[in-house]
Amino acid sequence: MERDHHLRVQTTRARRLPVVVVGLGPIGVEVAQLLLARPELFRFVAAVDRAPEIAGRPLREVLGDAAPRGRIRPAAPAAPRGQALAFLTTTSSVRSVAATIRELLGFGYHVVSSTEELSYPSLRAPRLAAALDRAAREASRCVVGTGINPGFAMDVWPLVLASNMQTLERVQVTRVVDAAKRRRTLQLKVGAGMSRREFEALAQAGRIGHVGLVESCAHLAAALGWELERVHESLRPKVATRRIRTEHVEVPAGRVCGIIHRALGYVGRRALVELDLQMYLGAKDARDDVRLEGTPPLRCTVPGGFHGDRTTAAQLLSAAARVDGFQPGLHIASDLPTPRRPGPRLKLSLIDGNRGQ
Amino acid sequence: MERDHHLRVQTTRARRLPVVVVGLGPIGVEVAQLLLARPELFRFVAAVDRAPEIAGRPLREVLGDAAPRGRIRPAAPAAPRGQALAFLTTTSSVRSVAATIRELLGFGYHVVSSTEELSYPSLRAPRLAAALDRAAREASRCVVGTGINPGFAMDVWPLVLASNMQTLERVQVTRVVDAAKRRRTLQLKVGAGMSRREFEALAQAGRIGHVGLVESCAHLAAALGWELERVHESLRPKVATRRIRTEHVEVPAGRVCGIIHRALGYVGRRALVELDLQMYLGAKDARDDVRLEGTPPLRCTVPGGFHGDRTTAAQLLSAAARVDGFQPGLHIASDLPTPRRPGPRLKLSLIDGNRGQ
Repeated sequence: MERDHHLRVQTTRARRLPVVVVGLGPIGVEVAQLLLARPELFRFVAAVDRAPEIAGRPLREVLGDAAPRGRIRPAAPAAPRGQALAFLTTTSSVRSVAATIRELLGFGYHVVSSTEELSYPSLRAPRLAAALDRAAREASRCVVGTGINPGFAMDVWPLVLASNMQTLERVQVTRVVDAAKRRRTLQLKVGAGMSRREFEALAQAGRIGHVGLVESCAHLAAALGWELERVHESLRPKVATRRIRTEHVEVPAGRVCGIIHRALGYVGRRALVELDLQMYLGAKDARDDVRLEGTPPLRCTVPGGFHGDRTTAAQLLSAAARVDGFQPGLHIASDLPTPRRPGPRLKLSLIDGNRGQ
Repeated sequence: MERDHHLRVQTTRARRLPVVVVGLGPIGVEVAQLLLARPELFRFVAAVDRAPEIAGRPLREVLGDAAPRGRIRPAAPAAPRGQALAFLTTTSSVRSVAATIRELLGFGYHVVSSTEELSYPSLRAPRLAAALDRAAREASRCVVGTGINPGFAMDVWPLVLASNMQTLERVQVTRVVDAAKRRRTLQLKVGAGMSRREFEALAQAGRIGHVGLVESCAHLAAALGWELERVHESLRPKVATRRIRTEHVEVPAGRVCGIIHRALGYVGRRALVELDLQMYLGAKDARDDVRLEGTPPLRCTVPGGFHGDRTTAAQLLSAAARVDGFQPGLHIASDLPTPRRPGPRLKLSLIDGNRGQ
């Protein structure tokens, strides 16, 4: 049987959401460039960075030719009338961004942020999270932290897959990233080139490793209804067994070439959640992998893995399109509507439809 | 570095949603048994089937010992006060379930249904869909059709993955099911044992093959903002090259052992959506596979594939937990909150949290 169905399309044009980008590090630049490429959905209002070496520079110099004329501002302007949104892509801790979030809410913006701790803010800052939730409600705006990791690969994605489970005993997520293929700052962030001793000192001080792993663990458990008592976190160096040279760094054998960062979430002696993040130069078999134990057992793999910066920017835009019109408050990503690529809303019907009506 | 984080749990107990199951075919029985296994979340009110051979039978005879005493009813009772929900698991077309949906709305129920065409109801029945949407709004209730396929594997799941894409050129979904491992009705539904001529006659009459493939194609395109002009559907028999015997059927070589069902969604001459469903006895490399072409390219695989009946029941329960409290109306699955396994809502915090606050 072969059949052609002809379709009628009804379009509800999406409102163009006015947006600002606050923080022009690698993620902020990626987000700004991505939204400039989708002018039908987002209206670029301003890019903001208070760092003296960035504020005042021409937008096009930093963001490319798709940017409008004008300069990077040292502070966000008040939001245009109606709903507007700020992408906040500055730092990692809830505490470090709280004042900026309050300011942006006061200016009339929703806030979608790559701040890692904001992906599950009640973990480390429950009182501050409650205060930001109140501030967001009072301003009738949404605040949410997301990205690929934390945000999607180790939290929303396994949660979505878990919707298929009749019973669920255990969640295991493995992310393996070949850091040699990523930007310089990431290679340094995973300790490439350090001695083991330097690495261990920074690890103890919480100044190296992935930010957000314990957040993902808590996010998963909370959304699954699992009353975790304890998360055991370990951060170990991956040591180069031979000299590794990338575009950005050179690591002799015996020095650190990356991280093996794990979080195990326990109820009693049972580890119900296991998150395993391996990011090192030359990692083989890069992938994102979810295993759900239960009925029916489920495994899901993304060969090659989600690309960190590309997908973080995409996740931020996707969240932006979904907070517009959503109930005000400080949310976690899994509380938002179903993830999708932002776009106009269509309705499709068969031209020969309405059979028998 | 090794570190233990001790957690404090704050539970918001989920309200137990009163539910009825309407239609006790394989999916209805699976749904009823699954919700009886989660009494902390769902309060079983009644099971309904108007077929004379089922109505009046003891619940425990059909649903097992977890069912309460009582009998299967021929019609749904009025809903208990407050929000209540009906799982509707009877037939495949919007037209065939519309009257029952109106009745259930009138009785005070939300409706979550496995009716395949209801997964994207405006495709074949735009006026009826609009009328059901009005009826649901007037009743302050939700209606949604979902399941594993249509519902998840070829629509919500690729849409969720597409949230990672900066640009998206093409979506390709492949589902390969070894029908030999599935129930008898499915083996017959895919034509096992027929001659090619019998198959082709039934295919032309629309009485064989997967219901919902064109719905998934339209759902995907509509949610991605792609103005499809045409869907080309093909349904071909898979012919046994040797004798195949299963628990339920025997197929000689040369007879049909299943289907190869495809839908291609076009804008002009470009096929932007390609859905490929292969369900036949002895299919090798069973899997669900999504390929997204664009930036960054993304491939995702579930080796072995989503289990049809198990996951359809799980998807229906997941949708039920998410329509409770959602805005009234007739929805498609991707309009609901992010999929998850239903459960209580928790909030987790570090006992040593509130650093510096």
